[in-house]
Order: sequence, then structure tokens, then C-alpha cells
Amino acid sequence: MTTSRVIKTMSPTSSFEKGTIDRGEVGPHDVLIDIEFAGICHSDLHQARNEWFEGIFPMVPGHEIAGHVSAVGSAVSKFKVGDAVGVGTIVGSCGECEYCLAGRENVCLKGNVQTYNGRHYDGRETYGGYSSNIIVNEDFVLKIPSSLALDVAAPLLCAGITTYAPLKRWGAGPGKRIAILGMGGLGHLGVKFAAALGAETYALGTSIAKAADAASFGASEYLLLNSEETFSNHANFFDVILNTTSVEIPVDKLLGMLRVGGSLVNVGLPGKEVHYNPFSLIASMKSISGSNTGGIAETQEMLDFCGLHGIAANVEIVDASEASAVDAAYERMLHSDVRYRFVIDAKTI
Amino acid sequence: MTTSRVIKTMSPTSSFEKGTIDRGEVGPHDVLIDIEFAGICHSDLHQARNEWFEGIFPMVPGHEIAGHVSAVGSAVSKFKVGDAVGVGTIVGSCGECEYCLAGRENVCLKGNVQTYNGRHYDGRETYGGYSSNIIVNEDFVLKIPSSLALDVAAPLLCAGITTYAPLKRWGAGPGKRIAILGMGGLGHLGVKFAAALGAETYALGTSIAKAADAASFGASEYLLLNSEETFSNHANFFDVILNTTSVEIPVDKLLGMLRVGGSLVNVGLPGKEVHYNPFSLIASMKSISGSNTGGIAETQEMLDFCGLHGIAANVEIVDASEASAVDAAYERMLHSDVRYRFVIDAKTI
Repeated sequence: MTTSRVIKTMSPTSSFEKGTIDRGEVGPHDVLIDIEFAGICHSDLHQARNEWFEGIFPMVPGHEIAGHVSAVGSAVSKFKVGDAVGVGTIVGSCGECEYCLAGRENVCLKGNVQTYNGRHYDGRETYGGYSSNIIVNEDFVLKIPSSLALDVAAPLLCAGITTYAPLKRWGAGPGKRIAILGMGGLGHLGVKFAAALGAETYALGTSIAKAADAASFGASEYLLLNSEETFSNHANFFDVILNTTSVEIPVDKLLGMLRVGGSLVNVGLPGKEVHYNPFSLIASMKSISGSNTGGIAETQEMLDFCGLHGIAANVEIVDASEASAVDAAYERMLHSDVRYRFVIDAKTI
Repeated sequence: MTTSRVIKTMSPTSSFEKGTIDRGEVGPHDVLIDIEFAGICHSDLHQARNEWFEGIFPMVPGHEIAGHVSAVGSAVSKFKVGDAVGVGTIVGSCGECEYCLAGRENVCLKGNVQTYNGRHYDGRETYGGYSSNIIVNEDFVLKIPSSLALDVAAPLLCAGITTYAPLKRWGAGPGKRIAILGMGGLGHLGVKFAAALGAETYALGTSIAKAADAASFGASEYLLLNSEETFSNHANFFDVILNTTSVEIPVDKLLGMLRVGGSLVNVGLPGKEVHYNPFSLIASMKSISGSNTGGIAETQEMLDFCGLHGIAANVEIVDASEASAVDAAYERMLHSDVRYRFVIDAKTI
């Protein structure tokens, strides 16, 4: 039996508190990871507060996990004790459907096993990274390149792959103009990725105070979403707008900035319906699309890319000696008051 | 001066009436076409009744034009008297923007010259195909293959390219499952194209009486949009759903039938905003897209494809000896009471 110290919440209206859970045994294909850092993702807040669907409580959020291997099962072949590793949003999938067979476990037809607020196929609840350790099947563990520190690497496991995958799929690279809408936890990595991939990169947001950071991340310009000139000066301009926010956005005005055939790609999930004027799409053959994390192989590719290009998150470390520090971080996150990702120091849990 | 006999409407609330217009002179780069058949497109009705925007009246609709060349300008090199030719939705474009230079005149940045209810760049109004003849710059005239009769070829100039272009762009072919939503004037051609391109093709609609026709056009099955079983039995099924209707559609349920990464492509223009649940797009990386006719080169490619594969529209000929026959055809079109496209016999105008 493996005991974890955790930070958990007992209901959608509760504050966080400390506790322990039983992680069970390290199975033959499992890796035991001593967690060092766990990123705080906006989706943690959505789920802890039942904003998307009815959650499983007590809940231990956290799917941006970085640490070191402290034990391996008898059949584990990919990892050894001491390896720097990460775990992202999923810890299992059916392994048999066409998408799993194609390495796209993130869109498993059976429904994959989410790292927390989910259930293994045998019914056991999953508990995430706000914890001192976690046991994960080796097929869902990622190698973190030695050039990356674990605190700034942790957010790559969700925020990183969530922005990297659509940029790759929609062809971000030389000769393309890419706008990253919302320069927060996801968006600041999106700017770094788009620029590193060779695209002409723009940040699009409401906080001109972030302009200097945008430039340092590789953006050509920070454009204000709340200025009409942004739209009138950039008609038929972008190949892709990657929307990393989960707030209501001016869909038709954004579509107006796309070039013919361009795509507005959404990775943030607003809680309500989106509406658009069909003329905006049809006249110039545009698309509104969605993207949802990435498969394990692509996540490893993203981490290796980060290792090579020195890309990692800008983080603010949360000392979780008091569990209320997580509640405080959530409140600040709600007000976009973080540059750019909170990461819990798991040794303080 | 070239005089045309036309069928025109004087206001958005008027009935059609007969008259004449002056088409001007045949310029050096122009072709004079004796029109034999002109298709009636649903967009003719939208425009004649000001349903999309304020129209230019008197209006002579018609952008599905087939006829024979009866005169050519001194500099015309592509056509000679007697050639079977067609004219589609556009009769001019700037010729200088990046899209025109790429042969995509349908998305000209200056705004192309629509065949009717539009203006040439010098301000002259354009008048369409409900007419005995038309003068068009040779660069916007298409060759109709000799294997196609002109009455059934006419609708290819708009309904044909409007469905062919997105099917090509979204990869309809062997190994792909394509649904054509709405088997009317556009959709019945969409079914024929998707099947001829080698895709597993389905028709999706509300009139089971069309099932036999769907099969004869090459569809594997006609699926009822008003049956819940259609949706539950075809989850994760289609690569592309091509929506040829301009009515309100159940966007989220349609997205549920798409495979991971699939596209709902719209070519029909509903008059009001469309809404969708963002979960429907993001979870499985789907897209909602639009498509708008095609360029001149692609339209010629489509016509040649039709000549090779024996594809043409199923039509009902309208005897326009009385102009009111067009009003009557519009009323029947509004009730989907046509199999599958009305085509005016221009000799009766």
C-alpha cells in the first residue's frame, strides 16, 4: 500500500484541505513517481467547482505533474528509479480502438482515464497531482528532458501539449501568421511555440502590460482585443487564431481577421453556447475548430521540442504548507493575476 | 448595342415580368452568348426578395447559364462562334490580388463582380441569365463538354461547383465516409460527386421518398434527419458532412456523427446566427467550416469531371412564355417541390 499526502476538496463549495489517500500497490507495469511540482490548470477550478459536470469527491486535482521515479513494477521497461518524468491529463485508455492504435489516446473511443476526477475501467477513482506521489502505468508516463527544470516543465504536460498540438496540426511555421488569443497559462506557451516553429506570431489580448513579455516570448506584436483598430487593421491577416481563453469572444470579428481558408481554433472551453454569423464562415471558406490536448507520443514530441528549444512555462511557485494557499491561487487565477502559471511545490504538501 | 429579352423583377415584392435590356457592345475580350438554359438557384430567390441584402432593381437573376457563343471580340482567343459554354456566379474579378493570381477569383480581395445583382468595377449593373443572351469577358466563360446536354449542364455552374469544390478540398474519396445533408438542387449533385470521387456516400434529409433517387445517384443509404436513430447509430461515423441546406440544422447532433477531426462544411446560407456547444468541437477536434463556389479553373475542372463521369443535374424545364412561370417555380422551390433543379428554357423568354 502506498500512502499519499494530498490537497483535496470535499465538495464543489468546499475549501481545500490536507489529507492522505491510499494509492494502492505498484503493479507490474506501473511507475511510482515522487511528485515535485504540480501545475494549477484553469480546468482544475472548473472541475473542483462542478462547472463542467458533476465531479467525484473528495477530489485531488492536478494533471500537470513533474517528479522523479522512485519505484518501478517488475515489467516496466521504459523507466528506472531516478528518471525525471511527467504525467499529463490521462493515465489510461482502451488501447484497442482505432485512435489508441494510432497513438491518439486523447480521443480514445471508449473514453480515456482522466488523471483525476475520473475512474479507471475497474471503477476505482483517480486522484491527481496535488499530492506527494502517484502511481501510473508506464505507457502514460513522459520523459522530461534533462535541460528542463521540473517546476517550469510541469505546465507543459497540459498547457504545453494543448497549445503545441493544434499549432502543429494547423501548420504553424515559416510563412504563416498566427495569433494567440489570451496570453495566460496556455497562451504564453502558445506564443513561445508558434515563434519557435517559425511562424510570424502575434499575441491578442486585453492587457497591454503583457506586451513586453509577449515580445520576449517571440511575438512580433501584442494586439489589443478591445481596440476596433486591431480588427480593421488586420482584415484577411491571420492563417490561424488559437483561442486559449474560456471567456466569450467576438467570433465574427475574429473570423474577419482570418485569411481565406483560415481557422479559428479553440482549446479553452466556455461554459455556454457559441454563436456566429454563417456569412463569416462561408464567404471566405473559414473554419471554427476545436482541439483537445494530444496523444502520448505527441506529448513526448512536444517535451523533446521544449528541451531542444529551451521552452518552458513562466511560473509562480505555490507554497502549500497551508492548503488555503491553493484556494488563494484559484482566486488570483480567476482574476488573471498570475504570470503565467501557478505550480504547487509538492514537497510542501 | 445588344438587346436582350429578359425576365426581371422591379422590387423585392414584385412578380416577375418580361422586358428588354441593353447589354452594350461586345468588347475585344468579350464573348456574346446566346443563352439556351438558365438554372433557378435558391439564392436567386434570396436576392430577388432582399433576404440577404438590399438588391439592385430592376433585377435579372440567373447565374447558372448555358448556351452557345454567337460572337466574339477581336482579342478573344479561347472561344469561337458555336462553342457550347457556361457562365457561373462571377463575371469579373480584380485579377491582381493574391487570390486572383492563384486562380481563386471566387475569393477576390477587391470583391469579384457577381453575374447579377452586382456592379462592374466601372459602376454598371450586372444582369443575369434569365435572358436571351449575355456578354461576358472570356476569362469568366467556361467550356461545356460535348457529352453534356445544356439543360442538365446549366445547374453545374453554381450548384455543381458549390458542392464539388468542398468535396475536393475536404478529401472526399476512397476510404472516406461523406454525408450530403439536404438532397435538393445542390445536394443531389453533391451525392453524385461524392460517389463518383469514390467516397462511401450517404444522403441525409427529411424525405424518405427520395431514397430511391439517392441510391440511383450513388448513395449507400438515405438517412432520416428526423429520426433519433440516425444520430445514435452513426456516432463517430462521417469524415465530412456537407450541409447544402439553408435551414436551421441541429449542429451539435450533426457534430456528434463526425469522426475525430471531422468537418461540418456549410455551403447554404441561413439568414440567422448559428449556435453550437463548444464541447462538441473541442473534445474530438472537429470543425465547422464554410465554402463558397470555386475559382474559374476549378469550375472548368468540375465540368470536365462531369463530362468524363456523365454527371449532370436532374432538371425540370420551365417554359417561360409567361413570366409568372418563374414566380410559380419559386413557390414550388420554397416547398422543395422540384426534382431537383428548375431550369428556364431561355428560348421561351
